[in-house]
Amino acid sequence: MGSAPPHDTLLPLDPETFAAESRSVIDFLDGYYRDVENYPVWPPDAEPGRLRTLLPDAPPEHGDPVDVILEDVRRHIVPGLTHWQSPNFFAYYPMNASTAGFAGEMLSTGLNAVPFVWAASPAATELEGVVVDWMCKLVGLPDRFLFSGGGGGVVHGSTCEAVVCTLVAARDRALSRIGHDAILRLVVYASDQSHSTFQKGARIIGIPPSNFRVIPTSAASGYGLAVDSLCSVVDADVASGLVPLYLCGTVGTTGLGAVDPVRQLGEVARRYGMWLHVDAAYAGSSLICPEFRDCIDGAELADSVSMNPHKWFLTNMDCCCLWVASPAMLTSTLSSNPEYLNSVSQGGAEVVDYKDWQIALSRPFRAMKLWVVLRRYGAAGMRAYIRRHVEMAEWFERTVRADQRFEVVAPRRFSLVTFRLRPRYEGDQAVDALNRKLLVAVNASGRAFMTHFVVDNKFVIRMAVGGAMTQMRHVRDAWELVKEKAKEVGALPSDFMDMQ
Amino acid sequence: MGSAPPHDTLLPLDPETFAAESRSVIDFLDGYYRDVENYPVWPPDAEPGRLRTLLPDAPPEHGDPVDVILEDVRRHIVPGLTHWQSPNFFAYYPMNASTAGFAGEMLSTGLNAVPFVWAASPAATELEGVVVDWMCKLVGLPDRFLFSGGGGGVVHGSTCEAVVCTLVAARDRALSRIGHDAILRLVVYASDQSHSTFQKGARIIGIPPSNFRVIPTSAASGYGLAVDSLCSVVDADVASGLVPLYLCGTVGTTGLGAVDPVRQLGEVARRYGMWLHVDAAYAGSSLICPEFRDCIDGAELADSVSMNPHKWFLTNMDCCCLWVASPAMLTSTLSSNPEYLNSVSQGGAEVVDYKDWQIALSRPFRAMKLWVVLRRYGAAGMRAYIRRHVEMAEWFERTVRADQRFEVVAPRRFSLVTFRLRPRYEGDQAVDALNRKLLVAVNASGRAFMTHFVVDNKFVIRMAVGGAMTQMRHVRDAWELVKEKAKEVGALPSDFMDMQ
Repeated sequence: MGSAPPHDTLLPLDPETFAAESRSVIDFLDGYYRDVENYPVWPPDAEPGRLRTLLPDAPPEHGDPVDVILEDVRRHIVPGLTHWQSPNFFAYYPMNASTAGFAGEMLSTGLNAVPFVWAASPAATELEGVVVDWMCKLVGLPDRFLFSGGGGGVVHGSTCEAVVCTLVAARDRALSRIGHDAILRLVVYASDQSHSTFQKGARIIGIPPSNFRVIPTSAASGYGLAVDSLCSVVDADVASGLVPLYLCGTVGTTGLGAVDPVRQLGEVARRYGMWLHVDAAYAGSSLICPEFRDCIDGAELADSVSMNPHKWFLTNMDCCCLWVASPAMLTSTLSSNPEYLNSVSQGGAEVVDYKDWQIALSRPFRAMKLWVVLRRYGAAGMRAYIRRHVEMAEWFERTVRADQRFEVVAPRRFSLVTFRLRPRYEGDQAVDALNRKLLVAVNASGRAFMTHFVVDNKFVIRMAVGGAMTQMRHVRDAWELVKEKAKEVGALPSDFMDMQ
Repeated sequence: MGSAPPHDTLLPLDPETFAAESRSVIDFLDGYYRDVENYPVWPPDAEPGRLRTLLPDAPPEHGDPVDVILEDVRRHIVPGLTHWQSPNFFAYYPMNASTAGFAGEMLSTGLNAVPFVWAASPAATELEGVVVDWMCKLVGLPDRFLFSGGGGGVVHGSTCEAVVCTLVAARDRALSRIGHDAILRLVVYASDQSHSTFQKGARIIGIPPSNFRVIPTSAASGYGLAVDSLCSVVDADVASGLVPLYLCGTVGTTGLGAVDPVRQLGEVARRYGMWLHVDAAYAGSSLICPEFRDCIDGAELADSVSMNPHKWFLTNMDCCCLWVASPAMLTSTLSSNPEYLNSVSQGGAEVVDYKDWQIALSRPFRAMKLWVVLRRYGAAGMRAYIRRHVEMAEWFERTVRADQRFEVVAPRRFSLVTFRLRPRYEGDQAVDALNRKLLVAVNASGRAFMTHFVVDNKFVIRMAVGGAMTQMRHVRDAWELVKEKAKEVGALPSDFMDMQ
């Protein structure tokens, strides 16, 4: 014990400093939220490589005080951001921040516990089990997805991870029956509206890219997957010796918010021995309102369901709930038992080790975030929140429909409206270019940010209502902006007179 | 415009509330950091299922004030946590929280920008490019891993994700040459000390589990991968028509901190056309100190390198840097271009779209966290921080060696010491059980938390120094605790007298 102790050089988690510096960051964010409405939503003079010219090309040798760093964030970084929390953000699908989501993330980040196995932080693992059960009940999934019903849930970072895990589980269930060589004969089915993550996920797990089937949808089915089209493709595959593996169903597609017929897909999946995954990344949040519950009818036929509270459920990035009917299907393929993770203290009791429910070993304590959101806002608060956005989208849809220059392209689903300037005459080839010009002008104004989609060869503008700070006045302003820019790009009212 | 606007029901991101509630959470964490030293590191009366009995089985219908929620965290959750930020946490590898890491996470979570494509938040993407370049220079990787050198980096959540992405890139490079059917002939090589993530990752991407080779290591090479053993296995595979695909090298293995000979592995990888990935998850942080830099000698022969700032670099969960020599290898297999992500405003410039560098589409703004850490502590501060832990581990190693009852099993690497009660006589069968009993007793005391490993059939206790709040006195206390519990479990000094 004679050695001199090493001298202390840095106290990176000293409580005094922690509280003072953290309060500076809170003040910074407080100011940001007060101002964000006035920032251009999309940075109008963004130029690839700009930030690199503003920052040194090597890290500093010596540290700076937190205020200097915050000032650099304000001057160099904030002006180059797309402001996802702006109330005028209507692009992609919004990703919700909230006071409670932030509080939950602070707790998770501050405690910085890593619940990869139960023993690595028992209460963190157990809170995750509790909160996915809560969400399961709240969105109205059948009891088979509850732990008490033989299923269970996990909190991932993204739908993509959930999809890869379920694909692997489905694949290994099949291969254990018919041998690993059969990986070349497995087929995955999705619609042309399914999220690109399914195709990417199938590729990642070794399904030959030529064995990914994209079933076309149409306006007739509201861009939902039509079971007849699906079955004829599956039958053809079976006839040629291929093995149907996995079927992707979606409640609220990314482009249009379309809803696949879950019950029918479930029946097809069962008939052919396929795994059915239901992706409710965006619209899953709306399922807490009974009026949307029929979208998930038939979920008892699914093998897995996922939704992202980080989209429309006031839970800051990142947070995805995945429920499976058979946890053993996941864990049998994703488990690993290296010696350095075995617990000497745990005893023999059966516990959930969430590392075996996901790709990664280490994992943040994400459950805390979702739990705080549910505790802070309650089911009633969340339902009111969702309904408010749907009402705003309904208003926008009605208003677009009432203006002869515009049309709603696919019927509004949930809080998403897809619209465009109407073709000025039969076969108007310029209408796509005009709408593209309109969208560029809207975004260049900085007063709103929207994105587009292409359906049936039509370029359509997506108005996705769902920001945590978005109020009716922002939706109204967005409509005024669209009309103003429509005039500017040359879609004058007179152009449309001959349509009357 | 005649419709009445919907009434407002919830203001989830109101600045007033945000600041007040966030300060409550900061105060909570401030208190937690002041007290955590006195908490049992591992919850002594943890029992599977306990938390579930304390919480309702459905979410509340109405929300609670933040103070009520924090009180529940204090009463129900904190007592069931393993306290990863306790200065007495020496288990697994510690995961660092810090004031700057927390500040960075708050900024990232508060801004809640989602840089999946450049246009979705230009400055967030660009900051990531800047910060991975900074880290690349800081750990002394060759220029080929810099963007300016034709390579580049990305911030993932975990090594496991980095490994899956590089495995897929390597796989598809091979399959594009020899056809998708060859997936059944691809072989991945690792040592018996490599992280379990490699085996799991190889399985995820469709490599037949029988094609994963585990090369035994021994004390002779310090548990590093011996190139002769490797080559003979590879040669045998080639002779039987298999295709060497991917070689895992590690700088600082999970069990023992062992270091594989990177240059030699690189030469073997090149000879056989394999992808070499170097996993420096834990020890990568130490490479910022020139005295450890030789561990990465030969890195210019690697295809990819990864390290986890969330372990030992004061960056709160989660944060993993992955560098690749050829970004095109990653993006050619991981890219997707759905219409809803195309930007109408971006122009034709070439940009980094990080969704094509990872599994998931959506992604948190993790770069902010690492950038704030580097800005706040500087390279010099970080070096001092790392060296302090290494010095503490050196002291622990010396002290263990000086006590005749104990032995250091593998030489200390970085800040990890592996030790055990020495066998009392040749062929002492009870020594493993005794050490297991010792570890259980140490952890049950609540005064420290350590984990174990098994090497050469020996049960060894791992003392991993690396907590953000760990000071010399905690290391000394841990040693006193080990001696005290050694006595209690029956390893009395007199037992060892005949060894003198």
